[in-house]
Amino acid sequence: MNKAAIEHRPESEYAYLYRKGEVHLRLKTGKEIQEVFLLWGDPYELDGEQWLQEKRKMKLVAKTNEHFYWQVSVHPPYRRLKYAFEVCDETECIFYGDRGIYPLKKEYYTIPNFYFSLPYLHEVDAYQAPVWVKETVWYQIFPERFANGDSSNDPEGTLPWGSTAPTRENFFGGDLQGIIDHLDDLEKLGVNGLYLCPIFCASSNHKYDTWNYFMIDPQFGTKEDLQRLVQEAHQRGMKVMLDAVFNHSGDQVAFWQEVQHYGKDSLYYSWYHIEGEKPEYQVTENAEVGKNLNYDTFAFNPHMPKWNTAHPKVQEYLLQAATYWIEEADIDAWRLDVANEVDHRFWRKFQEACVKEKKDIYLLGEIWHSAQPWLQGDQFHGTMNYAYCESIVQYFVQKEIDEEQFISVLYQQLMLYQDEVNRYQLNLLDSHDTERILTQMKGNVELLEKVFAFLFLQPGTPCLYYGTEIGMEGGPDPLNRACMNWDKSTWNQSLWEKMHEMILWRKKYAMILSDGTIEFQYDKEREQITVVRARNKEKIIGCFAQGKEGIVVEKDNKIAGEKRSDGTWDYILWQEKEKNR
Amino acid sequence: MNKAAIEHRPESEYAYLYRKGEVHLRLKTGKEIQEVFLLWGDPYELDGEQWLQEKRKMKLVAKTNEHFYWQVSVHPPYRRLKYAFEVCDETECIFYGDRGIYPLKKEYYTIPNFYFSLPYLHEVDAYQAPVWVKETVWYQIFPERFANGDSSNDPEGTLPWGSTAPTRENFFGGDLQGIIDHLDDLEKLGVNGLYLCPIFCASSNHKYDTWNYFMIDPQFGTKEDLQRLVQEAHQRGMKVMLDAVFNHSGDQVAFWQEVQHYGKDSLYYSWYHIEGEKPEYQVTENAEVGKNLNYDTFAFNPHMPKWNTAHPKVQEYLLQAATYWIEEADIDAWRLDVANEVDHRFWRKFQEACVKEKKDIYLLGEIWHSAQPWLQGDQFHGTMNYAYCESIVQYFVQKEIDEEQFISVLYQQLMLYQDEVNRYQLNLLDSHDTERILTQMKGNVELLEKVFAFLFLQPGTPCLYYGTEIGMEGGPDPLNRACMNWDKSTWNQSLWEKMHEMILWRKKYAMILSDGTIEFQYDKEREQITVVRARNKEKIIGCFAQGKEGIVVEKDNKIAGEKRSDGTWDYILWQEKEKNR
Repeated sequence: MNKAAIEHRPESEYAYLYRKGEVHLRLKTGKEIQEVFLLWGDPYELDGEQWLQEKRKMKLVAKTNEHFYWQVSVHPPYRRLKYAFEVCDETECIFYGDRGIYPLKKEYYTIPNFYFSLPYLHEVDAYQAPVWVKETVWYQIFPERFANGDSSNDPEGTLPWGSTAPTRENFFGGDLQGIIDHLDDLEKLGVNGLYLCPIFCASSNHKYDTWNYFMIDPQFGTKEDLQRLVQEAHQRGMKVMLDAVFNHSGDQVAFWQEVQHYGKDSLYYSWYHIEGEKPEYQVTENAEVGKNLNYDTFAFNPHMPKWNTAHPKVQEYLLQAATYWIEEADIDAWRLDVANEVDHRFWRKFQEACVKEKKDIYLLGEIWHSAQPWLQGDQFHGTMNYAYCESIVQYFVQKEIDEEQFISVLYQQLMLYQDEVNRYQLNLLDSHDTERILTQMKGNVELLEKVFAFLFLQPGTPCLYYGTEIGMEGGPDPLNRACMNWDKSTWNQSLWEKMHEMILWRKKYAMILSDGTIEFQYDKEREQITVVRARNKEKIIGCFAQGKEGIVVEKDNKIAGEKRSDGTWDYILWQEKEKNR
Repeated sequence: MNKAAIEHRPESEYAYLYRKGEVHLRLKTGKEIQEVFLLWGDPYELDGEQWLQEKRKMKLVAKTNEHFYWQVSVHPPYRRLKYAFEVCDETECIFYGDRGIYPLKKEYYTIPNFYFSLPYLHEVDAYQAPVWVKETVWYQIFPERFANGDSSNDPEGTLPWGSTAPTRENFFGGDLQGIIDHLDDLEKLGVNGLYLCPIFCASSNHKYDTWNYFMIDPQFGTKEDLQRLVQEAHQRGMKVMLDAVFNHSGDQVAFWQEVQHYGKDSLYYSWYHIEGEKPEYQVTENAEVGKNLNYDTFAFNPHMPKWNTAHPKVQEYLLQAATYWIEEADIDAWRLDVANEVDHRFWRKFQEACVKEKKDIYLLGEIWHSAQPWLQGDQFHGTMNYAYCESIVQYFVQKEIDEEQFISVLYQQLMLYQDEVNRYQLNLLDSHDTERILTQMKGNVELLEKVFAFLFLQPGTPCLYYGTEIGMEGGPDPLNRACMNWDKSTWNQSLWEKMHEMILWRKKYAMILSDGTIEFQYDKEREQITVVRARNKEKIIGCFAQGKEGIVVEKDNKIAGEKRSDGTWDYILWQEKEKNR
């Protein structure tokens, strides 16, 4: 047995309170393992001197290149448990618990101290998130480029809409009124969650350099405009998520201005991370890159000084901003920029403050890598799930990885988190920070539909970047931030229809696609990947064939399937209900 | 290569901010691995398009039955890093990062997203603890049984000191004045940390059933007595740790009394976990065990109702108690009873409140199992290190495990935590909750000395249970709580001398024994375990031979070595200094 491959960690994605009274336990092993059993009991329950336990078979739920993952649920009657594992390969069974691996002998498996512990199942420590998110299909808007609804607030030098390519500097006059004007279009498309890039006072067109957290940028409108936007969205059953930049500010913020002037004498000096009398750096050719900075910034950008979020006053200021917009505009979610570079103590306070203000707020961190430290229940509900979705692009678009590696990475990413966390991840193929997905695909619209079909089958909530539904293209930043095309006669209408259909479908089956079990299969002969989602007696199955061989299936509620020019099926999704069981 | 055995987890004991600017990175692998390198760089540092990284060799720091553990330090200049591992066995090298295992090819190892992240090194999130603890040798006192210094406060029915065996119910009149009276004795012994079992108002002799958190139990004395005790201890360079029971209270506490009377109508109903109109249970033969309890308690003890520590008012009440005694009596540490059954959110607030009151407070949780969730820096500084020390008893006393298993378990336990955490664990061989160690050894005093010598060589701070130094014995609770013997003529004087010598030695070399590296070696032929501690150019080495063969060594500052009756060495400790390097 490959004992070195056996892994478990209490109070992590391997062992957690799932829902009221139900605990999930997970074990990672090598792939030679044939059976795994959970041994568990209440830590204090004795029959005479004998400590009582129960044995339960675990289910194989994920297979990566290297590992098997096993999982089981139990309902401890007194909200506490001790547990260990019996792990069997073809030739032997071993005991694995808190003190390591031992022979499966009574002298070891009867000692309670040799067991792992979940000492008491506190709901307050458990991961919990608002259920509306599971039914949401997000639509990301870059406000300066979505629609110009009010020319009276256009900044100086605003260019005619879409008249030229987007640059890091130019402005086209997009604003909140523009979004309000097109809510009907978005409702028609079917999306029910708007995710807006920052809208607060800032100098740039991207507004990630906030200088006033309590004021809508005048180029975008007013607080009243935001209030109207949220109200109108809510009337259409849409939620609204704003983007907050709490890692750093723009250098135009009043506090930094004072620090630049007075240095150490400023009250605000300690609001930042500065070494020296005054903040200093050497200018380089690139305005966004400084050299020899004596203060911390976002990346090396001298114009984005990093907040000292350990400072009580900074916390107070930023948390006020966070709750202000919930209270004033009734927003439903915060997307948190560069969330991984802000300290955990701050985010815990942030969660407490936001949840107190609005019980079902959704908090989404921008984290591109493994994010367990933020997703234990005390900080975020989800992250921008780049890590998971990149592999979809790597497989379908860049063809950099083969089927086996693809499935392995998907399972591996899913196994990083609690089941419920995976359902609250924001799944995206592109954003304002990446090349547009259709451009990555060199304009292959059929492939776009296929990849979205795959994305919509995953547990996390999907997100479209504005314009994707009509076939907009665009290279890396700033080309990915072009003006939305409102000349509907030039839209790719059939793409729009397909996206529309898929969005409705995703919403219709949201609870299966969110909460259902997930299984990936690869049929090597047919070069076909199958995704199986199941919940209670319902099943949704998607087939994604890249080979020549088509597949014929009995279809119920088929929503998308492409017969290719050579007569074979390319991808197909269908839903079935088990009968009479 | 056993790829399935390779394991890393960012922001855990595998990757953390160690000290200002210094990061520790650790990797777990199978035992066929020959070399491991860290590949790391700043996430934003580019040379043109090229992302810059450095390669550094990792050191093999621990070997268990199944695994090798590798570790290295880096000092990221901008307090952030991306990193991955190059892992080599005899035949191949692979790349291991945030997206899993890949061939060591440029197409993978040049992608920054394939690297693990420590996005920003926040000191406020890092584990930090007060340095005085490292120099402390603890002495645990069960106050009712240490010394009766004031007979005027003896409870009714107090028995003459030591006149009979201790029971769960009887009282002998031990009190705070008794401890004060013997501070000189303790100072003479050399201990410099007093750890007192609970002293607040409670009905039992063990006082774990608190009914008033703001008042010293009258049987033990007054607030003024505690103040005097702490002052007198401080004058002798001793710290004082009190024991707080925040998981549950005694059923005599006013709030519970009211709940028992008024049920749901009581304001305090929600301070507990009750299902039903009123708290109810069925009496059994054992007063400490109830049946069909409709409220949560400690274990199944109906007289110890569990606090709902998620309730803001309960938090306020208990945190007030925690800070009250720091403020009023200047205590130095809290030992937290049944700490593992209280929620993490509570403990985070507890840490904030205590540290705010006293910057160098030490917070010690009673946790008998793996305790990573409490030792990340946001809750406790250490735990009662039963898990580590049990293996010492299993090897030396019960002889249940062989040398290889022993060393494996020690390394495995050390690798559960950050290096610094291991230095703040409280290492103990017995307590009020276990049989006395000398009784476990069937009175073998030589073995006692040897085991303490081994304990004192470990990184955590050692703790003696009162009376151990004079050879007191006692079976499991309640027999382990006998009256301290103050008839010095009957003391085992040579044991006292040896313990005294070892305590002084431990304090003298505290910084090597705490901060030094640790290595365990086993010489099979000599049946001899060697423990090597090293720091800078200093080394401390301990040899523990159970076989026939003695060992001859060059000794400097030898402090303890037993020539056995057959003329061979049993154990020996010595210290050496490397010269001219």
